[in-house]
Amino acid sequence: MPSEVIDYSVLSPVGSVDVLSMNEVNTLSGLNKGKMYEIFRRCALAVMNSGIDNDDIEQLENQYRDFDINIVPQARGACLEVQNAPARAFVDGKMIQGVKENLYSVLRDIIYLSTQLDLDELGQEGNGAQITEAVFHTLRQANALKARMDPNIIVCWGGHSIGSVEYDYTKEVGYQLGLRGFDICTGCGPGAMKGPMKGANVAHVKQRIRTPRYIGLTEPGIIAAESPNPIVNELIIMPDIEKRLEAFIRLGHGIVVFPGGAGTAEEILYLLGVLMGSDHGQAFPVYFTAPKESADYFIEIDEFIGSTLGPEAQKLYEIIIADPEQLAITLNERMTEVKEHRKSIQDAFYFNWLLKINEVFQEPFVPTHKTMSELDLHMDQPPYQLASQLRRAMSGIVAGNVKEQGIAEIHKHGPFKLHGDKVLMQKLDKLLKSFVRQKRMKLPGSKYVPCYEVITD
Amino acid sequence: MPSEVIDYSVLSPVGSVDVLSMNEVNTLSGLNKGKMYEIFRRCALAVMNSGIDNDDIEQLENQYRDFDINIVPQARGACLEVQNAPARAFVDGKMIQGVKENLYSVLRDIIYLSTQLDLDELGQEGNGAQITEAVFHTLRQANALKARMDPNIIVCWGGHSIGSVEYDYTKEVGYQLGLRGFDICTGCGPGAMKGPMKGANVAHVKQRIRTPRYIGLTEPGIIAAESPNPIVNELIIMPDIEKRLEAFIRLGHGIVVFPGGAGTAEEILYLLGVLMGSDHGQAFPVYFTAPKESADYFIEIDEFIGSTLGPEAQKLYEIIIADPEQLAITLNERMTEVKEHRKSIQDAFYFNWLLKINEVFQEPFVPTHKTMSELDLHMDQPPYQLASQLRRAMSGIVAGNVKEQGIAEIHKHGPFKLHGDKVLMQKLDKLLKSFVRQKRMKLPGSKYVPCYEVITD
Amino acid sequence: MPSEVIDYSVLSPVGSVDVLSMNEVNTLSGLNKGKMYEIFRRCALAVMNSGIDNDDIEQLENQYRDFDINIVPQARGACLEVQNAPARAFVDGKMIQGVKENLYSVLRDIIYLSTQLDLDELGQEGNGAQITEAVFHTLRQANALKARMDPNIIVCWGGHSIGSVEYDYTKEVGYQLGLRGFDICTGCGPGAMKGPMKGANVAHVKQRIRTPRYIGLTEPGIIAAESPNPIVNELIIMPDIEKRLEAFIRLGHGIVVFPGGAGTAEEILYLLGVLMGSDHGQAFPVYFTAPKESADYFIEIDEFIGSTLGPEAQKLYEIIIADPEQLAITLNERMTEVKEHRKSIQDAFYFNWLLKINEVFQEPFVPTHKTMSELDLHMDQPPYQLASQLRRAMSGIVAGNVKEQGIAEIHKHGPFKLHGDKVLMQKLDKLLKSFVRQKRMKLPGSKYVPCYEVITD
Amino acid sequence: MPSEVIDYSVLSPVGSVDVLSMNEVNTLSGLNKGKMYEIFRRCALAVMNSGIDNDDIEQLENQYRDFDINIVPQARGACLEVQNAPARAFVDGKMIQGVKENLYSVLRDIIYLSTQLDLDELGQEGNGAQITEAVFHTLRQANALKARMDPNIIVCWGGHSIGSVEYDYTKEVGYQLGLRGFDICTGCGPGAMKGPMKGANVAHVKQRIRTPRYIGLTEPGIIAAESPNPIVNELIIMPDIEKRLEAFIRLGHGIVVFPGGAGTAEEILYLLGVLMGSDHGQAFPVYFTAPKESADYFIEIDEFIGSTLGPEAQKLYEIIIADPEQLAITLNERMTEVKEHRKSIQDAFYFNWLLKINEVFQEPFVPTHKTMSELDLHMDQPPYQLASQLRRAMSGIVAGNVKEQGIAEIHKHGPFKLHGDKVLMQKLDKLLKSFVRQKRMKLPGSKYVPCYEVITD
Repeated sequence: MPSEVIDYSVLSPVGSVDVLSMNEVNTLSGLNKGKMYEIFRRCALAVMNSGIDNDDIEQLENQYRDFDINIVPQARGACLEVQNAPARAFVDGKMIQGVKENLYSVLRDIIYLSTQLDLDELGQEGNGAQITEAVFHTLRQANALKARMDPNIIVCWGGHSIGSVEYDYTKEVGYQLGLRGFDICTGCGPGAMKGPMKGANVAHVKQRIRTPRYIGLTEPGIIAAESPNPIVNELIIMPDIEKRLEAFIRLGHGIVVFPGGAGTAEEILYLLGVLMGSDHGQAFPVYFTAPKESADYFIEIDEFIGSTLGPEAQKLYEIIIADPEQLAITLNERMTEVKEHRKSIQDAFYFNWLLKINEVFQEPFVPTHKTMSELDLHMDQPPYQLASQLRRAMSGIVAGNVKEQGIAEIHKHGPFKLHGDKVLMQKLDKLLKSFVRQKRMKLPGSKYVPCYEVITD
Repeated sequence: MPSEVIDYSVLSPVGSVDVLSMNEVNTLSGLNKGKMYEIFRRCALAVMNSGIDNDDIEQLENQYRDFDINIVPQARGACLEVQNAPARAFVDGKMIQGVKENLYSVLRDIIYLSTQLDLDELGQEGNGAQITEAVFHTLRQANALKARMDPNIIVCWGGHSIGSVEYDYTKEVGYQLGLRGFDICTGCGPGAMKGPMKGANVAHVKQRIRTPRYIGLTEPGIIAAESPNPIVNELIIMPDIEKRLEAFIRLGHGIVVFPGGAGTAEEILYLLGVLMGSDHGQAFPVYFTAPKESADYFIEIDEFIGSTLGPEAQKLYEIIIADPEQLAITLNERMTEVKEHRKSIQDAFYFNWLLKINEVFQEPFVPTHKTMSELDLHMDQPPYQLASQLRRAMSGIVAGNVKEQGIAEIHKHGPFKLHGDKVLMQKLDKLLKSFVRQKRMKLPGSKYVPCYEVITD
Repeated sequence: MPSEVIDYSVLSPVGSVDVLSMNEVNTLSGLNKGKMYEIFRRCALAVMNSGIDNDDIEQLENQYRDFDINIVPQARGACLEVQNAPARAFVDGKMIQGVKENLYSVLRDIIYLSTQLDLDELGQEGNGAQITEAVFHTLRQANALKARMDPNIIVCWGGHSIGSVEYDYTKEVGYQLGLRGFDICTGCGPGAMKGPMKGANVAHVKQRIRTPRYIGLTEPGIIAAESPNPIVNELIIMPDIEKRLEAFIRLGHGIVVFPGGAGTAEEILYLLGVLMGSDHGQAFPVYFTAPKESADYFIEIDEFIGSTLGPEAQKLYEIIIADPEQLAITLNERMTEVKEHRKSIQDAFYFNWLLKINEVFQEPFVPTHKTMSELDLHMDQPPYQLASQLRRAMSGIVAGNVKEQGIAEIHKHGPFKLHGDKVLMQKLDKLLKSFVRQKRMKLPGSKYVPCYEVITD
Repeated sequence: MPSEVIDYSVLSPVGSVDVLSMNEVNTLSGLNKGKMYEIFRRCALAVMNSGIDNDDIEQLENQYRDFDINIVPQARGACLEVQNAPARAFVDGKMIQGVKENLYSVLRDIIYLSTQLDLDELGQEGNGAQITEAVFHTLRQANALKARMDPNIIVCWGGHSIGSVEYDYTKEVGYQLGLRGFDICTGCGPGAMKGPMKGANVAHVKQRIRTPRYIGLTEPGIIAAESPNPIVNELIIMPDIEKRLEAFIRLGHGIVVFPGGAGTAEEILYLLGVLMGSDHGQAFPVYFTAPKESADYFIEIDEFIGSTLGPEAQKLYEIIIADPEQLAITLNERMTEVKEHRKSIQDAFYFNWLLKINEVFQEPFVPTHKTMSELDLHMDQPPYQLASQLRRAMSGIVAGNVKEQGIAEIHKHGPFKLHGDKVLMQKLDKLLKSFVRQKRMKLPGSKYVPCYEVITD
């Protein structure tokens, strides 16, 4: 069934990238629209589907096969023209302002990525510092680095597919954070990425905070499956998953993890792996939190961490069950420490320069049957190293579940095969099965077919 | 059980009345705090109970018997000190900003009322034009009259005590209105006065409307029973119920009525009575709307109007059931007419000067057993005149239900007695009974004991 | 020769009084335009002659005899229509924005004066506190009382008719004050009322002060002769000369006096008289300053004060010759004392409530041949009392020189006659003659004919 | 004599580049401060000497030999520390805000130049389009390209060393332009670069234009000799003289040339050369203007142009003598054409993309004895080509007069030698001698020793 679609011209909103160079315009246009145009179009489509709960990209792509977007320079600034755009982005034929602004954020970031970054060169070994510079510059050109501000960004992680009890809980946590003036940064999709922003927004209205920040960090590979929720007012497209993860921990002043699936596990493993390898003390507090009904989830995660990465890793976070107010009060108190810590080591509030990230966490990992089967999944390695391998395994599973390229690979070659030593593989299998059982792998409504096989060497 | 209370000093927020004269400070302070102080204290307490769903004032009064509030002038501006204030107005010991701002709105309006208006003089016969001037000035000093704006204020009326289906419906209507850029004006309490604002706020966030208006019009007699909901960002205390009603129709560019009880019926009767007596054409569109489940409510109201005020009255409104989007689209289209109409008669957009209000609707009505029993409830009078008498009957019932003074009267002398001709009284009785049956007279949780008796002459 | 004139419609600028009540509009319009309309018209004409150096009102009046101004309410706010307006208020047929804004300031204040103040009642004996309230309210409704600000308003007094050396000196003083962030308040005409603002503006641009304040306090009787200079961005029309003088000392945090004529002498006598009668310590520092070439002026004034009001009066000011930078540095340092003083007596920064003004300085003085001849000009009275009589004498001379009514009186009855004891009258005569000799009585270009005679009893 | 100096720390002002990457900080610091640091230091020193009229760089350099400036990152943003800085940049020990802001503009542009531009690569033949991109990006990162604005930037050129009659004339022109809402863009030094801004500022104050633009375009080689005047509120350091010239004509919507010396002649020759080679019609109006007393200057220039570049070149400008108001009115009218022209060729208002600049005008010209002697100064070449050679000759003379490097060359090797055919060389000699005679080569107070010799082949 063809969806309702609309053609429209959007002048650049105030505050957006509104002045483009000839070269920038050419990068995304021309007769033979290239790879960057494709990425731009896909991200733009995701923004125009803002708020939809559907992680089946193939279906979306089919539905809006004729969607097209072009830059049309005008005397007074940039103009985007869309054809066959999803009607849900409009009210009575006029584009919703939030969609407009996010569309221009996409334009800004894809142009930056196309013209200023050389990902191939950055991917070379030994380029960790340059990668961090690239993360900094991507965030700065998106105007996300604010001088003269005290620490107040809470990064919230958790599943895009969660039940209503968990969703309401994320809203309540957001509300309590918002009452205390915190801004929210998430991966910008549905579920646990949306709830904290919704809750915070209600509190920000009560506290008359006129310029609240709802930062959504995404990347071209995931945006289609996790279309930005409509509250996001700072949408940033990072170049790839590793730079997105780095952006989270460079920006955030506190991290709250809600229950989730493989993506959330990837984030946890990334975070613990990095923090174990860092040497300046812990840069920010980390909390795992869930409603009473979902307490088991973190018990399982905690157990998995304890038995794989060890008790040192467990010291890096606290678990708070069913107490949003206490969580918010504690985070608020911990901000004083974060400030003092940054000052004492002469680091910036707006970008966590001195948090050392081992390059093994910065190197882009492209999950294929080959790279997945070559993961080094054994217990006899330093915990941070093990964390890096496990996070890649999770990353591959996310790709196989919801990313276009990953899904295509699985279609062609069957499930990814994960090899490793027996003890570890059993633990991993147990964890993944619990995700499946709890329906955390896909949005409800579809039966989940695993995209991986766990094999004991 | 004593409630948790807090002592606090509040400096005047930016944009509030922050500079007071010696005389103004003295009006609300001094050793023997007078009548105006009492009104100020009661309104302030209501604001600090913002968001609470409790219309039992006596209980609230007992709970915060020791609440006190004082003006303390400071070198840089005004400062309010509260003692034994409700803890719910605070987060971690700091007053919520929205509460602060509304507290200063109360201060502004009570000072204005105390020092600039002479209600006794205004109450004299033949002072209709002066009353309208007083309504204008009260609104202007509250900064509610905005030049250079197109018509976009929708006044929403409806019950403070409604069920969740109706509440969700008011939110959805607010959402659809907000998507189209409308601002919301209500009586500022819970229920149908809160829902449209909540819904609109979600839409305003999506539309990036940075200065949405959630105007709450109240008066000292009702504010305690209908404490301002926390979204209200323009709280205005009108001097009394009649001036509050006049403010609604001078400010609004469209009126939407949701199901409600005696208060809503009062508003409907006031509105129809005024419009029937006006001579410049209809100044704004009026819609009655409800979810499918509550359609009967407006069938009953419509029938009552038809059989008492007649078909001319019925032409003044339309009924839309279960279609918030259509309602919002229609209102949006009708705004063009409102603009043209105002321009053609050279009236202002921000204040509906040329809508003639018969003085019978402006005269303050103080419900007592005497005035209630003297109401002229007979069919053989002009419809607008009948509307004015019926609206007073409803006003008295509201007072007997939830206003401090009215409740005291009922305690002392038993229910109000309403006399009138048989046909009319039967219709009225039927309508009021339906309100009771539908639990629209009081907030849920308490059994309703009628404060009136309908007596056939 | 008829001047070039223009017809024009001015919509209310943002931030001005843009929403008027029917009653307010009627006050200044109607078929038989009354006294308030005449005052409004005269002030408006003065504003439209902004920047002109001509204190000959009769000539101006003749030139723009056909000038007319009317309020035309519009759907979106107020609109003023001018007919036969001075072309100098326009650029290529469009009204200069600063003129627009000041025109609406006139409208705001004349409406306030017409509808809110009862000057006759205020003039009754024993109404000192009410007069101060009236000054406060006039300033507050003009948005001139800013909360949350540190003391930084320097009141500058001095002649409207000064030579270029003195004018350049006032600019340099303004520049040095502006560099230190001071705002400037003057009587809003040419000469020493304009120079400090011009100088401060250059400094404010360098210091990137985006909202500098150039407050011009005037009154209907003087505005025509001293048309507001075009830098004034807060024009306030006080009801009469006494309230204007009170406004200066309630608003200011420091006072700088430049050389001037009878008007400046009036201000000095008023100031010293008030300060000698006050009991809370000196509320602000006072400096007399002049370029080297004009040092004699203050030597003469100082001598006159010493020999009439006595050495106590001389302690209330300091004289600084030819050192603008030192003056500004000193004033800047003294602001700390002003702050401490206000805090210690719990007074406001924005309005000097606790400075006691003896009612003899608040009573309106209308100079006629009768009142001038009855002045109590003898040495055997308390200094503050003598100051009040001398200030009235000066006030009458200003009126006879440049105010419409005063000039008319002189035309009809010849010069005012000032009686008093011999010693005092000789001193006074000497002072006045020095003003005439120094050409401080009228703008250059016209021969000065004294409007007074000094008579020894 | 050592000058008064001050040490100071400057936090980044709001709106400036306030968030720096590690790499950016390192570029301008470190133990062995490199070439970019030297450029940064020199530009910073020039800004701190803002407003000084002294083009003798050597003397300035000696005076502030110990001046040092360093970036010190802080938790809340960037911080600059200066040592031994000129006291004139401070008031009572606090840095003037305008100096602060311009200091951070220098930081922004030098970092951009250091990290984003590769001047050597840009200098390669055939890179014209890339040079234009570089000009665009330099301006955009300086926030100088405003979308949503109508054409209103007038570029004013003219001498840094002019007499007071000419200076007052430039102020009056600026005033008339400012009254009509024009913004001003100049080379940011004294004389004709300052006057129009001063005049415009007075008018902008009257017109209540809250965000006027005073754009100063400079480059590292000239900034020391022509220190930014203190009104400049958008200071932009272009990489070199050719990109600065290109920036002028890409940004401007109208060009006004006042009398000047070799620098002004360079600008005129550049402008005419470019316009003769362009093919989209004239992108903006050009006026030469002077007071009556200096009319001869443009008669001489006009004659030189007519007899070298020919009558086609003369058609590109108009000469208006002694009529600032008429000039401003005409420019205002011509803006409509500029708008229509840009729209018709689909060009931007904020950047004149479609004005074709022949690469001969984009190639950097470094004046040395060799390059100067090799200039192709003969009449038998296309006029635009001849213009490009003559503009280089003038550029070399400016360097020899006031640029550090040029002066050093002259010290070492004596005057530049200019060869060419007899007729042309005589004309050139006549023109240059008139500049010397009119004291347009250096600021007054020093005797001018020519840095060139004109030699006939």
